[in-house]
Amino acid sequence: MKLASLKHGRDGRLVVVSSDLAWFTDAFLIAPTMQAALDDWERCEPRLRALAESVDHEAVPRGRFHERDAAAPLPRAYQWADGSAYVNHVELVRRARGAEMPDSFWTDPLMYQGGSDHFMGPRDAIPLADESWGCDLEAEIVVVTGDVPQGVTPDEARDHIRLIGLVNDVSLRNLIPGELAKGFGFVQSKPASALSPVFVTPDALGDRWQDGKLHGALSVQLNGKDFGRADAGIDMTFDFGVLIAHLARTRSLVAGSIIGSGTVSNRDADGGPGKPVDQGGLGYSCIAEVRTVETILTGAPATAFLRHGDTVRIEMLDDRHHSIFGAIEQEVVGI
Amino acid sequence: MKLASLKHGRDGRLVVVSSDLAWFTDAFLIAPTMQAALDDWERCEPRLRALAESVDHEAVPRGRFHERDAAAPLPRAYQWADGSAYVNHVELVRRARGAEMPDSFWTDPLMYQGGSDHFMGPRDAIPLADESWGCDLEAEIVVVTGDVPQGVTPDEARDHIRLIGLVNDVSLRNLIPGELAKGFGFVQSKPASALSPVFVTPDALGDRWQDGKLHGALSVQLNGKDFGRADAGIDMTFDFGVLIAHLARTRSLVAGSIIGSGTVSNRDADGGPGKPVDQGGLGYSCIAEVRTVETILTGAPATAFLRHGDTVRIEMLDDRHHSIFGAIEQEVVGI
Repeated sequence: MKLASLKHGRDGRLVVVSSDLAWFTDAFLIAPTMQAALDDWERCEPRLRALAESVDHEAVPRGRFHERDAAAPLPRAYQWADGSAYVNHVELVRRARGAEMPDSFWTDPLMYQGGSDHFMGPRDAIPLADESWGCDLEAEIVVVTGDVPQGVTPDEARDHIRLIGLVNDVSLRNLIPGELAKGFGFVQSKPASALSPVFVTPDALGDRWQDGKLHGALSVQLNGKDFGRADAGIDMTFDFGVLIAHLARTRSLVAGSIIGSGTVSNRDADGGPGKPVDQGGLGYSCIAEVRTVETILTGAPATAFLRHGDTVRIEMLDDRHHSIFGAIEQEVVGI
Repeated sequence: MKLASLKHGRDGRLVVVSSDLAWFTDAFLIAPTMQAALDDWERCEPRLRALAESVDHEAVPRGRFHERDAAAPLPRAYQWADGSAYVNHVELVRRARGAEMPDSFWTDPLMYQGGSDHFMGPRDAIPLADESWGCDLEAEIVVVTGDVPQGVTPDEARDHIRLIGLVNDVSLRNLIPGELAKGFGFVQSKPASALSPVFVTPDALGDRWQDGKLHGALSVQLNGKDFGRADAGIDMTFDFGVLIAHLARTRSLVAGSIIGSGTVSNRDADGGPGKPVDQGGLGYSCIAEVRTVETILTGAPATAFLRHGDTVRIEMLDDRHHSIFGAIEQEVVGI
């Protein structure tokens, strides 16, 4: 089952989208918003599934689904906690800063509490007041949970995953060192993130969803050129069950909590820091990582952070090259 | 005007409370929940104010307001960002850890993004799975904003403050050093916080609300004994306008964002680290601070962190010794 929120008011209007993303039908009679459906999932889920089947079989009135009409599936959420599950990425970024990565990072997940009050829609422009802030994309996987009791195990936590999607976790890289030094996490360096047009239930992902990981190449394009194609299921040190259990160790989580994987990143086959796509590598899911590789190889970064007019596209295709979640496609604009 | 949310479903039921906290009347016909009122404040505020006047004048059917029936005014919120505006407190806590405080902390607010998916009601027990986590209270002031555009000045930001209240920002002190070392802020060391029974509009606070600061002694009791009575308007280095502007530097904030002051803390009159209330001092708004003072004076902390069965009470009284926001009164319990 695929769900989306069409732009409407503060929370969007819940719709069920066909498997091929071509059609939608209104789910208002079941739940007016995605959050309302998550709040009452046991009642809503079977009814939404029945509606989804009807959409696929043209058994209900349906309209064309345009990704540009979609808000973020949760335009505002009660929680956004972003892990750094691809420890490879963390190690690379630290190395470029000349910082050692503690061994504990391989066993104890890094995670920050992000601002959840506003998620951009998949086609919304990224407002950037100051290019010197060093604006970066971060292509990641997210899951949305139901209510999660405190102290769940990773195994139990996986059963609380309701929906899966993509995020562009916009970061202001040049503001990060100052905030990291304060030790209190990210406030100014993490403005609103953008979510994929649709969120998908685990069962609808088939073999791609296994052991709390989403498998498949995450396609990232920068200004229309291939920039990254790392596989989200590879080198993910902590699966989503582990990430949720980490967050829920000392507190329960309410339905609609969004948990992020951190920037998807694969090691090179030869164990090296990773080649660009046009050199046959898997590329990168954020600019910081290519700058890191450039720094390691040549002593200085060459790729610039995002400037006004730059475009970013993030998508995952299935085996038949159809988009699974729709595409996040954003232009950076001045404000 | 004073507003509260009676326990009901996930978001409570919005009620208007009389100035003396004795009576309430349902505000359902204006807005079903506090968040709904904040979402549409321009329309709701005058109607809620009219209703509040009617409650005070017994012009509408009203019921007795019992603080034990109150949920948190916002049982779940879209944002919770907590500052450390009482830099005195930060300096003390760091000194006890043997860490220097950078001079920039006097000009650049320290702030973390907290979990906002669950706020405890004012009488809810504090669930503590493990006493060795070092559970602490933190008595603070909070404000709730309307929609705040990116890049507001502190002056402008003050006009976006809709409501003011109290919070017990529960902290797990022994988990903090590990999370601080990771640099990503607090995830496990900050479980759910508790909010005061009512939130109050700035105008209803009279002279106590000035220049983005709440003035008056914040009464903190631990196991029925006076523990703190620091004045929230004194030694607040950053007023709420500055804190909101800090958070909104790179992003807009949605209505219903809760911004915290950090633990209220006053310097001693002689500039010393502060005496306990029973020695004629202003005491403390968290246990960590008395432990810090003990460490500075005697080399080791003497006061224990919260254990199962301990009780905490946080309140602010007006000039006639009436409670302004009602009392947060919680017992620590095992789970």
